[in-house]
Amino acid sequence: MKNIFSIDYLVNKSILDKPIGVFDSGLGGLTVVKQIMNNLPHENVIYFGDIARLPYGTKSVEAIQKFTKQTVNFLIQQNVKAIVIACNTIAANAKEVILEIAAKHNLPVIDVLFSGAKSAFQASNNNKVGVVATPATVRSQAYTTLLYNLNPNLQVFSQACALLVPFIEEGLLTHPALKLITQDYLAPLIQENIDTLILGCTHYPLIQPLIKDIVGNIKIIDPAFQAVFELDEILTSHELKVSKVTTPIYKFFVTDLPQSFRSTAELFLNTTINNIELVNLED
Amino acid sequence: MKNIFSIDYLVNKSILDKPIGVFDSGLGGLTVVKQIMNNLPHENVIYFGDIARLPYGTKSVEAIQKFTKQTVNFLIQQNVKAIVIACNTIAANAKEVILEIAAKHNLPVIDVLFSGAKSAFQASNNNKVGVVATPATVRSQAYTTLLYNLNPNLQVFSQACALLVPFIEEGLLTHPALKLITQDYLAPLIQENIDTLILGCTHYPLIQPLIKDIVGNIKIIDPAFQAVFELDEILTSHELKVSKVTTPIYKFFVTDLPQSFRSTAELFLNTTINNIELVNLED
Repeated sequence: MKNIFSIDYLVNKSILDKPIGVFDSGLGGLTVVKQIMNNLPHENVIYFGDIARLPYGTKSVEAIQKFTKQTVNFLIQQNVKAIVIACNTIAANAKEVILEIAAKHNLPVIDVLFSGAKSAFQASNNNKVGVVATPATVRSQAYTTLLYNLNPNLQVFSQACALLVPFIEEGLLTHPALKLITQDYLAPLIQENIDTLILGCTHYPLIQPLIKDIVGNIKIIDPAFQAVFELDEILTSHELKVSKVTTPIYKFFVTDLPQSFRSTAELFLNTTINNIELVNLED
Repeated sequence: MKNIFSIDYLVNKSILDKPIGVFDSGLGGLTVVKQIMNNLPHENVIYFGDIARLPYGTKSVEAIQKFTKQTVNFLIQQNVKAIVIACNTIAANAKEVILEIAAKHNLPVIDVLFSGAKSAFQASNNNKVGVVATPATVRSQAYTTLLYNLNPNLQVFSQACALLVPFIEEGLLTHPALKLITQDYLAPLIQENIDTLILGCTHYPLIQPLIKDIVGNIKIIDPAFQAVFELDEILTSHELKVSKVTTPIYKFFVTDLPQSFRSTAELFLNTTINNIELVNLED
């Protein structure tokens, strides 16, 4: 039996019980938290959403990198044991910045972008992959670059869908106007005969039923699901999985509007949440 | 004949030729610049758009006031002779902050919100006025409060239209999905038998033809047009109109993405623009 009063055990225990840091420019990254709740149900989680400065999808690379640096330093102050980049725009534009800081603190980094690309590469049979994402993610060509690195024979067809996030955040998930717009966005990809479609924005899993209706037999990849699968593997291989089987603590930090964050977050997570704290990274 | 070398004349001339400061969280305020170009064609203009932190419409009052204070101080550094608040969200949430700073520098302040309300009050015959605006402007009840102050017998019906700005900024001005969404937004107002409709967001004049098609004979109020009419009056009464009839200088300051600002701004203004400068207010 372990001596639970030994310094070794206490130190070790404290590492294992540290939270996983998940961050996004806004709410979309909550689809990753939802996957952690489902698949790693004993892990503690800290979520950070930069509500005051969202959306990142329409901002410059310089602005995204500056905001990301502030966020990662904040998560490290909160003593996280691993970092999940739960935003394709951040992963596409600021991954190097994050890896540089994380390396100094010996923290593993998972990102939805790489997880999504790897999963699509494995899923496609005809080597024709579609990507739907925000304009900034598409402009960055991050998915295209990653997919070509995995298999130079892949053909990648990307479609920027600027209006899907506003529709989803308005809760208009079944409005006929959303269907018209989504059909318009997907038509060119279907015409290219893709057999796999990456939901390249963390909001899109919320309209997966609508997308499924439109694309029929095309395989849909949800990068949040795949990222949490990889997080599980990396926590296991680094011997970082939580040490006790108790109710986990979920803590949420936002840079603006904690009350409206609560109501939308409860929709995303399908559960009541507390522990929402307002922080200011600019000062 | 005036002695053009006298200090009095030089000082006075320099005041008259100072620019008008127009500001918004983003691009929408350019509809005010367009009205100045049309109706005060010799005035110099400085435009400020806080692209890095837009949209303000979904942010807290505290955040909007903080950003506004930084912006107004910046405009004063640029030596403006008058300030036009070209954003309903800012006018609704931060007017006091602006007036306090402007008073210290003896600067007149015009805002689209007050101009729009006054014009609607004058236009309505049945005392039923509709307002379409961003969620934050509607939540603030700023139009409702102003209209009741002008005439306590007015009935005001407001409709938050979160999706119109994203559609307009995507340039999808004639997409059938926009028509469906706009019909949904306007139906409750038409049902209330309004005879006057305020376009309570500076973007909305760009879809005025679509709105006109839907509302028929209802009078549409464009606050940008009315604000520039009042600006003309106040410059005249304060003896601040530009002293020479030459080509004016238009200068644009943005906090992010000057290149994409240029292309959208040229659409809003229907002319080529130069003089776009990137500034950082956070430091």
